[in-house]
Amino acid sequence: MTMIETQLAGWQSVPFTKVAIDDAFWRPRLEVLKKITLPTCLAKCEETGRITNFAKAGGLLEGKFEGIYFNDSDVYKVLEGAAYSLMTDRDPKLEVEIDRIIDLISAAQEDDGYLCTYYTLEAPQSKWSDMEKHEMYNGGHLIEAAVAYYEATGKRKLLDVSCKMADHYDSLFGPGKRHWVEGHEEIELALVKLYRATGEERYWKLALWLLEERGHGHGRGMIWDKEDWGPAYCQDDVPVRDIEKVTGHAVRAMYLYTAMADVVHASGDPAYIDALHRVWSHSVERNMYVTGGIGPSRHNEGFTFDYDLPNETAYCETCAAIAMVFWNHRMNLLFGDAKYADVVEREMYNGALAGISLSGDKFFYVNPLASRGDHHRVEWFETSCCPTNLARFLPSIGQYAYAQTEDGIAVNQYMNGEASVVIPGGRTVKLAQNTAYPWSGRIELMVEPERAEEFAIRLRIPGWCRGFSVTVQGDLLQETAVIPSKGYVTIVRSWTTGDSIMLELDMPVEAVRARPEVEADRGRLTLQRGPVVYCAEQADNPQLSYDDFEVSARGQWSVRHMPERLGGVTVLTGADSQGRPLGLIPYYAWDNREPGFMQVWLREAEEGQLYSY
Amino acid sequence: MTMIETQLAGWQSVPFTKVAIDDAFWRPRLEVLKKITLPTCLAKCEETGRITNFAKAGGLLEGKFEGIYFNDSDVYKVLEGAAYSLMTDRDPKLEVEIDRIIDLISAAQEDDGYLCTYYTLEAPQSKWSDMEKHEMYNGGHLIEAAVAYYEATGKRKLLDVSCKMADHYDSLFGPGKRHWVEGHEEIELALVKLYRATGEERYWKLALWLLEERGHGHGRGMIWDKEDWGPAYCQDDVPVRDIEKVTGHAVRAMYLYTAMADVVHASGDPAYIDALHRVWSHSVERNMYVTGGIGPSRHNEGFTFDYDLPNETAYCETCAAIAMVFWNHRMNLLFGDAKYADVVEREMYNGALAGISLSGDKFFYVNPLASRGDHHRVEWFETSCCPTNLARFLPSIGQYAYAQTEDGIAVNQYMNGEASVVIPGGRTVKLAQNTAYPWSGRIELMVEPERAEEFAIRLRIPGWCRGFSVTVQGDLLQETAVIPSKGYVTIVRSWTTGDSIMLELDMPVEAVRARPEVEADRGRLTLQRGPVVYCAEQADNPQLSYDDFEVSARGQWSVRHMPERLGGVTVLTGADSQGRPLGLIPYYAWDNREPGFMQVWLREAEEGQLYSY
Repeated sequence: MTMIETQLAGWQSVPFTKVAIDDAFWRPRLEVLKKITLPTCLAKCEETGRITNFAKAGGLLEGKFEGIYFNDSDVYKVLEGAAYSLMTDRDPKLEVEIDRIIDLISAAQEDDGYLCTYYTLEAPQSKWSDMEKHEMYNGGHLIEAAVAYYEATGKRKLLDVSCKMADHYDSLFGPGKRHWVEGHEEIELALVKLYRATGEERYWKLALWLLEERGHGHGRGMIWDKEDWGPAYCQDDVPVRDIEKVTGHAVRAMYLYTAMADVVHASGDPAYIDALHRVWSHSVERNMYVTGGIGPSRHNEGFTFDYDLPNETAYCETCAAIAMVFWNHRMNLLFGDAKYADVVEREMYNGALAGISLSGDKFFYVNPLASRGDHHRVEWFETSCCPTNLARFLPSIGQYAYAQTEDGIAVNQYMNGEASVVIPGGRTVKLAQNTAYPWSGRIELMVEPERAEEFAIRLRIPGWCRGFSVTVQGDLLQETAVIPSKGYVTIVRSWTTGDSIMLELDMPVEAVRARPEVEADRGRLTLQRGPVVYCAEQADNPQLSYDDFEVSARGQWSVRHMPERLGGVTVLTGADSQGRPLGLIPYYAWDNREPGFMQVWLREAEEGQLYSY
Repeated sequence: MTMIETQLAGWQSVPFTKVAIDDAFWRPRLEVLKKITLPTCLAKCEETGRITNFAKAGGLLEGKFEGIYFNDSDVYKVLEGAAYSLMTDRDPKLEVEIDRIIDLISAAQEDDGYLCTYYTLEAPQSKWSDMEKHEMYNGGHLIEAAVAYYEATGKRKLLDVSCKMADHYDSLFGPGKRHWVEGHEEIELALVKLYRATGEERYWKLALWLLEERGHGHGRGMIWDKEDWGPAYCQDDVPVRDIEKVTGHAVRAMYLYTAMADVVHASGDPAYIDALHRVWSHSVERNMYVTGGIGPSRHNEGFTFDYDLPNETAYCETCAAIAMVFWNHRMNLLFGDAKYADVVEREMYNGALAGISLSGDKFFYVNPLASRGDHHRVEWFETSCCPTNLARFLPSIGQYAYAQTEDGIAVNQYMNGEASVVIPGGRTVKLAQNTAYPWSGRIELMVEPERAEEFAIRLRIPGWCRGFSVTVQGDLLQETAVIPSKGYVTIVRSWTTGDSIMLELDMPVEAVRARPEVEADRGRLTLQRGPVVYCAEQADNPQLSYDDFEVSARGQWSVRHMPERLGGVTVLTGADSQGRPLGLIPYYAWDNREPGFMQVWLREAEEGQLYSY
């Protein structure tokens, strides 16, 4: 089907193991992740019984199930993160600890392959009776951890456990077998991963079947206490190919679209493609915060109605921001359009990153865009999906930097360091980025192919950037060669070792306004510089009180990089409309000092445009 | 009156003779001015009888008056420009030629001091019978030329002529003498110049009296053919202290406000101050084009109604743009506010500069913001005020760069080169700017005082600039010290030789929209980068036709400096909404190649904001 093929770019991700980040922004976070976040999460999983649940289910320990039915998934997610960390930094001690946990997981697996400690321990008779009980959600995270750990260590044990579990699913569910709608999507994308790791097509087919099960009345919707939230809560209201709008629980929705993108990568189903385009537009055009946050409501941890983006009460679950990365990363690879990498970037530097403290041991589950001073990161949650999602998101951040394209390489994210990318024909190109991104828009890219060879290098011109310049070996390119297409400037030439590209992105301070339909932001603006969204925090503005100040769109901001402040941030200093000093910091860095108010959207001084034109 | 004193900053201009420009932008223009423009204008004045009119009036030559009654002024303006040129580049040959013309002018002066060759030759019996006949307008330009030539050469002859003429005015007009409203303002600002050059207070008083004469029914308004345009045409509708709105002929209005600013500098009259503030707001907020152009109508060479800013039929006389510089320069000195220097800059790089070809020998009188290909510069006009205004504006451009403030120095315009500025206490500070402005926002300022001394250096943060950074000797300043006040960052410290300031102004490509009230620009946008407004010209876009393309506010533009193109311009290359290549050049540089369409305001593709926030 030619039509479909031309719609799909079919790019490939460049694994983060091929991307060595060596910068002042991500490197310290990766260090903290390894030294603090991962050990902290493992310890919390131990302390809270999440790990011992496996030992109990495996009969190695006496006792009842502790915690919530989806707690297995947290262990799996930390294992996945640990596996990613091991891929770049061998750590025998950590590996021993993971192997110990894997033994417990293996022990907890029932003979038929079933694996979910809650049911095994609490209600073995009630398996597969409640779509909301996250049985396959847990299973999906097991698969992701297993694939990662296999890739990191070559050890098959956890992969075998997950294959056995997936085979068990396959034996129970599918065409001609039982119906099943999993309440919290995750298994679908995981099964595609398992298919890619093992080559077993039945996993991909099961993923497709699970997607197709939705929206036909097979599920029962979400019933919480006495309240029936209906099938839209878990995206079970319409068949996936008919999706028009983002609905329900934000993380579930994102995991669903991620799986759809994964599946369509192989199927090319035009109905899926259309649905993905529709729901992407509906998500970002009507339901996304400037931070990349999604899901305004605490009630359903998800979506409400279009343009409902309240700031103080914004829910914006950290997991949802991370899931937006997963989905948009896939969309970028599918369609070869930089606008999806723009969203990835927005999450990387704002919505997702805000979820973790600079110290690496405190987390936000909820990410409001305004606070009167009583919202703070904590060490752990009863439902601790967010810390464990960060634990797997951050160590793999390098995977978003590059993509293998049909004709060469796409540079999607700018970060100082080196990478190896395979190009068509199979040879490897080494790339080195020299940049202080995201604080500077100047990026030098050094190209080192195995031998002189013609291929394309695509440079993403971020959506926030209006003006840029590109030179290759100091020379301007042909005039029309620098016109971005789908957000990329594409340079095709015979590259030889020592070639360098200089990309300079205008990175001005920009006053951003929301769409007029967004009631919460009317009469307000926010400041953005490059990919970084700013906020006013009380620590920098002790003389001001919450919402007692307003700024002008014509305001002029001093841009200062402070290497010693908040792990190294570029701060903006200006004045409010009464001339009082006002300091702004990156949103992701808030709540790392003394408690106080915070605001992203600042009241805008009502003043006309100075000039008539 | 304390109140008034605090309202006035009372800064002093730093003469352009103290400002050595050595850059790729202005320096070539100054060379062309000297080599081409001035000789061309002198030759045209000769050819067209403008110079021989003086010889005839002086009885040195037989013949009738040639041309229009205000033609004397063109000769004076070229002389003023020549004098400015001589101040920085001695040129004995030019000086001999000027002296010859001065002898003719002197000969043309009548015994009582009267000097206007039209009346002397054509209608001596009708002097002072028609406010529209530019007698004092001519006289004002004589004064400006005389003061300039005296300052350039020390030769008094023309200054004496102008004093004798001014004394003659003073003998006829003033309190208890005849009423007079000069139809085209100019004499008022010139008399203030003469007062400053000679110290004779009566010239200042006469200027004040002439201003106060307006708006009391002493004039007769403008009658053109059979049409009575009423007194607002020449700003004679209300007393100057009651002015609310800019009205009538644009150049006249600007010269009036310039004179008011000059007079209030000494008088401090709060009614004038209020009137100036009111009319400035009304001018720039409702009646100024993005190029700085003013006066949309060909009919009255001036203003019509608020927000009437048509593009194709824009009149925007070059002289009016230059006059905006004169007025705003005074306003900056009066009030110490950078917003006036912003307007000066807008004219310098757009509205005023467009008036002259890169070759220096062709001129626009009319500066539309859109053309279908039939509007071109020509060598001369019957009414040739614009070429001769450029001849005096350009060689003195350096005067806008710096101001002496009450506590040091204000840097108003950025241009590579050196300057000497006197600071309070009388010592001189040498300044050197190292910059590629207006193509780059990076400016290094080297400071060399006579001896280590504390004073203030104010750096203008242009109104178009939202973000900037300042370091002194490589160090960040105290955090709140960089908050701009009245558009300036002020650095007070003990400066010593070798101190340097690094100022980096964000200079992004910016999509600019007009106020919604401006009907002509609805659904359109224009591109600006730094102070430079861009346009689409056919020469760069042979594949497009007039208005057959539209652009997106989200468009991404490649920024390329082309030293060989159009005298060295930074061009923008992007795509229209259909993906066709679109090249933009600075507005001032248009019509220097093959004829074709031009548009400043480009049709905007109707598309929503991509994101909801």
